[in-house]
Amino acid sequence: MTDTQFDVLTVGNAIVDIIARAEDDYLARENINKGAMNLIDADRAEHLYAAMGPALEASGGSAGNTAAGIASLGGKAAYFGKVSNDHLGTVFTHDIRAIGVHFDVAPLVGAPPTARSMIFVTPDGERTMNTYLGACVEFGPEDVDADVVANSAVTYFEGYLWDPPRAKDAIRLCAEIAHQNKRQVAITMSDSFCVDRYRDEFLQLMRDGVVDMIFANEAELKSLYQTGDFATALNAVKADTALAVVTQSEHGSHVVTRDATVKVSAHPIDKLEDSTGAGDLYAAGFLHGMTTDRSLEECARIGGLAAAEVITHVGPRPQVSLANLLAQSGI
Amino acid sequence: MTDTQFDVLTVGNAIVDIIARAEDDYLARENINKGAMNLIDADRAEHLYAAMGPALEASGGSAGNTAAGIASLGGKAAYFGKVSNDHLGTVFTHDIRAIGVHFDVAPLVGAPPTARSMIFVTPDGERTMNTYLGACVEFGPEDVDADVVANSAVTYFEGYLWDPPRAKDAIRLCAEIAHQNKRQVAITMSDSFCVDRYRDEFLQLMRDGVVDMIFANEAELKSLYQTGDFATALNAVKADTALAVVTQSEHGSHVVTRDATVKVSAHPIDKLEDSTGAGDLYAAGFLHGMTTDRSLEECARIGGLAAAEVITHVGPRPQVSLANLLAQSGI
Repeated sequence: MTDTQFDVLTVGNAIVDIIARAEDDYLARENINKGAMNLIDADRAEHLYAAMGPALEASGGSAGNTAAGIASLGGKAAYFGKVSNDHLGTVFTHDIRAIGVHFDVAPLVGAPPTARSMIFVTPDGERTMNTYLGACVEFGPEDVDADVVANSAVTYFEGYLWDPPRAKDAIRLCAEIAHQNKRQVAITMSDSFCVDRYRDEFLQLMRDGVVDMIFANEAELKSLYQTGDFATALNAVKADTALAVVTQSEHGSHVVTRDATVKVSAHPIDKLEDSTGAGDLYAAGFLHGMTTDRSLEECARIGGLAAAEVITHVGPRPQVSLANLLAQSGI
Repeated sequence: MTDTQFDVLTVGNAIVDIIARAEDDYLARENINKGAMNLIDADRAEHLYAAMGPALEASGGSAGNTAAGIASLGGKAAYFGKVSNDHLGTVFTHDIRAIGVHFDVAPLVGAPPTARSMIFVTPDGERTMNTYLGACVEFGPEDVDADVVANSAVTYFEGYLWDPPRAKDAIRLCAEIAHQNKRQVAITMSDSFCVDRYRDEFLQLMRDGVVDMIFANEAELKSLYQTGDFATALNAVKADTALAVVTQSEHGSHVVTRDATVKVSAHPIDKLEDSTGAGDLYAAGFLHGMTTDRSLEECARIGGLAAAEVITHVGPRPQVSLANLLAQSGI
């Protein structure tokens, strides 16, 4: 994986997070599915914001967080996603470029506005997202810069991109360009409800070789194979992809290839503050390891290290240099 | 202090913070006065934002943070300050109301935009502010709701209000209404450079009894009395006001009356993350103590407790219920 301009291109819904603490009974009262990414329309967004506690705003979006993590680790990252030319679009663009990610997709001019996700963090540190997709619905193949795809060792995209209407066309185009250039393509399963919405399509992407590797957490993998048994799901995935990276929160992660499964413990933390970005940063660490020729076990450990940083503070992206943390970690 | 609708009315520049980590040499290179509140114009704001790292956005403003702290402690707080009817104005209004503060000042329609402060947090946890005042320059006596002032036990305002052109007229009006209604008036000295700009006016406010009590940190008090010796400054303030509350960061605080000085230690913390809001939340705690009939020593200890919460995370307002922390503290 040399002679590339970028280690990883990530593609996703470009979102600014609006983050507040909330109690579990608030989620119940508002009929919000805890732990999930709930899609909402503009009216619901207004209703929830009015009922929301005091908030912080921070650039987010799953693949955006992953790109930020790779840049923070010292890797070369690029990002595709759609914002509008409004205040939140300016914030998103500033933040992703400021951390060192190449981001040059033309913003939408006018409505709909830049996407935002209202994230409620419950006392257990779990995050529950309520996402208004806004400008993301306009993302399509015309936003794909073929040179960037061709020059990225890995193209990584969100399963969430199956929600807006034309993003999946952009992803199919990216995968084609990537494979023509002997690059790799990765998908994250994003959310167990998202897997439930697009299970057959995701399995087909794996079986057709449109993707070369997948990232999933335990709930997503179980949803993918419609089983309540984790071991069954772990075993099933071997038949469908050459590399599956499966996270289990505080129980660590599993790297599953056709020949073997490597189990790695979670990185120890003092206190879980906000789980937002945990999976995104794990993927950042894993992909950074891959693109710097680390062993699969080391990739998983770097993933755990990056995830540990992001869950010990409020906000979905690293607040300190992950390159420094990695250097100090001895991994 | 009973029969009031509000325990504390706070008045200040209504600002949204844009917070990023930075190294000391960045501040030096950009000629930014470390630890201070630096006033900037729109061009400088654009320049600094372009050079700034990835950021978080959070409602701030010194007196706004204090009002939020009082509400979080379970007190009844009101706030006067001016935003514009733009995105950041909506964010500011949402956040201060969501924490339970009464805020009903009409937003400015059109330019200038809502104020923002670019805050650089250096590795030592110190914050350095670069504030574009925007809509705050339009705040004036017409924004004063006399009923709110008359029904607040204490009206507390920022020295920073001497920077915009007509806010001081609003403050003089507030003080007059407050005293007519036998309420108390407090000022925070805000920043040692601010004291340097308005030293004579601040001393006159104290000596004329426009304010009944002052909040200052060590640097501000030394600047007020143009001395390098803290003991000299502590002694000098007794002649000018009936109550001075003076903070000294990790060295605790001093409550100075004409008869005595009470020294209280700082509340212990694990790690200083971001000092933004320390003085504002100390004042919130102290004022909450005062308006719930606590001893001066207890007031200072509640101040220290509230400050300790806000400096152990990024962002200028409490992220957890201070009322719960206070209940658990045994104070």
